[in-house]
Amino acid sequence: MRMYDLIRKKRDGETLSKREIEYIVRGFTDGLIPDYQMAALAMAIYFRGMDSRETADLTMAMAASGEMVDLSSIEGVKVDKHSTGGVGDTTTLVLAPLVAAAGVPVAKMSGRGLGHTGGTIDKLESIPGFSVELTEEQFVQNVNTMKLALIGQTGEIAPADKKLYALRDVTATVDTIPLIASSIMSKKLAAGADAIVLDVKTGEGAFMKTQEGSFSLAKAMVDIGTQLGRKTIAVVSDMNQPLGYAIGNALEVKEAIDTLQGRGPGDLEELCLELGSHMLVLAGRVPDQDAAKDLLRELIASGAGLEALKRFVQAQGGDPSVIDQPERLPQAKRFEPFLAGEDGYVSYIHAEVVGTCAMMLGAGRERKDSVIDLAVGIVLKKKVGDPVKKGEPLAILHVNDESRLDETLALLRGSFEIHPSPVPKPPLIYGIVTSEKIDRYY
Amino acid sequence: MRMYDLIRKKRDGETLSKREIEYIVRGFTDGLIPDYQMAALAMAIYFRGMDSRETADLTMAMAASGEMVDLSSIEGVKVDKHSTGGVGDTTTLVLAPLVAAAGVPVAKMSGRGLGHTGGTIDKLESIPGFSVELTEEQFVQNVNTMKLALIGQTGEIAPADKKLYALRDVTATVDTIPLIASSIMSKKLAAGADAIVLDVKTGEGAFMKTQEGSFSLAKAMVDIGTQLGRKTIAVVSDMNQPLGYAIGNALEVKEAIDTLQGRGPGDLEELCLELGSHMLVLAGRVPDQDAAKDLLRELIASGAGLEALKRFVQAQGGDPSVIDQPERLPQAKRFEPFLAGEDGYVSYIHAEVVGTCAMMLGAGRERKDSVIDLAVGIVLKKKVGDPVKKGEPLAILHVNDESRLDETLALLRGSFEIHPSPVPKPPLIYGIVTSEKIDRYY
Repeated sequence: MRMYDLIRKKRDGETLSKREIEYIVRGFTDGLIPDYQMAALAMAIYFRGMDSRETADLTMAMAASGEMVDLSSIEGVKVDKHSTGGVGDTTTLVLAPLVAAAGVPVAKMSGRGLGHTGGTIDKLESIPGFSVELTEEQFVQNVNTMKLALIGQTGEIAPADKKLYALRDVTATVDTIPLIASSIMSKKLAAGADAIVLDVKTGEGAFMKTQEGSFSLAKAMVDIGTQLGRKTIAVVSDMNQPLGYAIGNALEVKEAIDTLQGRGPGDLEELCLELGSHMLVLAGRVPDQDAAKDLLRELIASGAGLEALKRFVQAQGGDPSVIDQPERLPQAKRFEPFLAGEDGYVSYIHAEVVGTCAMMLGAGRERKDSVIDLAVGIVLKKKVGDPVKKGEPLAILHVNDESRLDETLALLRGSFEIHPSPVPKPPLIYGIVTSEKIDRYY
Repeated sequence: MRMYDLIRKKRDGETLSKREIEYIVRGFTDGLIPDYQMAALAMAIYFRGMDSRETADLTMAMAASGEMVDLSSIEGVKVDKHSTGGVGDTTTLVLAPLVAAAGVPVAKMSGRGLGHTGGTIDKLESIPGFSVELTEEQFVQNVNTMKLALIGQTGEIAPADKKLYALRDVTATVDTIPLIASSIMSKKLAAGADAIVLDVKTGEGAFMKTQEGSFSLAKAMVDIGTQLGRKTIAVVSDMNQPLGYAIGNALEVKEAIDTLQGRGPGDLEELCLELGSHMLVLAGRVPDQDAAKDLLRELIASGAGLEALKRFVQAQGGDPSVIDQPERLPQAKRFEPFLAGEDGYVSYIHAEVVGTCAMMLGAGRERKDSVIDLAVGIVLKKKVGDPVKKGEPLAILHVNDESRLDETLALLRGSFEIHPSPVPKPPLIYGIVTSEKIDRYY
């Protein structure tokens, strides 16, 4: 087999066999296939696509290129949730304890990575003492006893994907559904999930800007999961404005606590119920989604979800009193209101720009080695559809380092639009994709 | 400017500006733009193409990446002839002295390269003493006094093209007209030509197998030349069977001498008259093609073309008596006839396979460091359309090293087809492409 022939084959619109795809992934990971050949192949895939069998084979080959986490010593169906990434997405912090409280195991392996805010680990580290430094034995034991544990990545998960992504990132071959879908799913498979609930964001603040693209990506990922024997379902949800109000690490922990207390932002709660209910159904915990939502609402009302969060924090060295007294989370020194310049109705909040503003305040990593300030970020006061008066705050900036504050405020100014007449609230959930069908609500 | 953005631009079907193309070529030549980005761009060009302005800019940028030969000290219009490459193509050896005899300067710079036989330099080196080791002063003086000189490449001609070609060769991005056309034309421009006559081969033994592709390539190259201010014309000629009879270095020199004596193969002479007449017209030597062909025929009949070859050989250290006694050229030890297996008419000769057979006998380089045997090769006895009796020779193999003879004969067997009923002679010239029009004869 020669890489040249495989590039040509894909270039000419033919499909690659499983053996050929395995040869490519192995050769590329081992450095036997040079970057320039892989870049040419990626561009050929950009133009020619891959069918669902090829995409599944690529996913499996990339998953198998590194450590394959074995969660078989954990009892029950392990359901993983994955979001394609948005701004202010606090769902994991709400869902993990809630699903655990329902008795479904949540064995979460997480990274840090780049972004507008830190990853799940960073956010939880804003709780004094919290650590993900567990042994694998502790990790398994914690999940078995309290249904929830979080560990940092141990071995290297899907190194082929990591290497390919880095190459795609500099060769303009990121934006192609088979490669996006296989990249995400390879990591989920390697992380040992039995079933997967995907939250595919759509809109200006999402990787996929159009509903069309988001549903195609959702379909591609569900197809991969299904072909590889993992029950998979995707929810397509809105990212035309940030989810919830908080963007920032400690700020999102606080918002998650609020939500587990039944007083979180409506959109965040609704999305958590939607995603969580699919998790419970896939885990076989309840017969249908209605029953699942009822159960989740009950776990919020009874405080069982909050209790699960407290137990989990304590088990991983964190101070559980923070859950009842969130004011003990890191606090910024200064609160800078960002005011409306006119009367009207909020008609647009550019999610991605708001995310960038949070990052500029120090909430996220611009580079791998950036140090995050866990206290800072942005809390929205208004969302799309809300009426606002001139001089009322649209958001509060939580600031420590003031050096980029003016720049941030100027950028934020352009990310809000106010319309003189009422504006409808945008939809939150655009539809569901399962192996059987694509159900679009709009 | 960032290479990433330029890849994305081309990927999305936009055109690249002159400045952008110059940035790419300079960066790639200097090693600042890595191979993997260039490979991704080449594949994007494969799918999106380049318009004629982009292709001309790419050509000029690649030409300017190395030495630009200055032929301004040579009097007259310097017309270069270039063939896209075929099997048994002896036209340069005939045309160079013929055009020189007509008083038009031929200042030829040549390489060796890979192929079924050697390049023009290798072929001429089969004449004892012949050398291309001239100083630039000698070269210019020889052209000015006797209208013909041949020099090996001095500086590096179009290094950007060399580097890009090597990359395209391993990334399945060779077969795309803008890149093929700019590759050829960049070298012609760097070599200092004022006007260019292109011989674009078409058919099984050519790089372009179809007439469609050959005319497109011809058009692309003529467009480049025209845009860059060089009068350019392309002849599309047949390469479904080898041109002439001889394939091999000394064998082709002998065939060129025969042709200059008016007793060469009909197809070789016809193509030389066609290409040569365009050269004379572009040089302004004669008013039209008919007058040019008359002049060329006269130069053959009078022996003036042969005389020019003799003077040229002598001026470059070669033994001129070889021209009158071609039996003094290197001779192979053994002549192995390749016989027809049945009666009928030759219906097909697979040019590329016959070329490979000649290379296997030692006539060409399989690798850069292969040593050529100048004496060996294949002389056809029959061409398509010729009647043949069982046991009559279809070709004579001129052999020194017998180690691969059986293998060569077996391969040759499959390259000839004999049909029971008469077969028409195939056309030799399929049409002409000028800046004004595409004239297809079939």
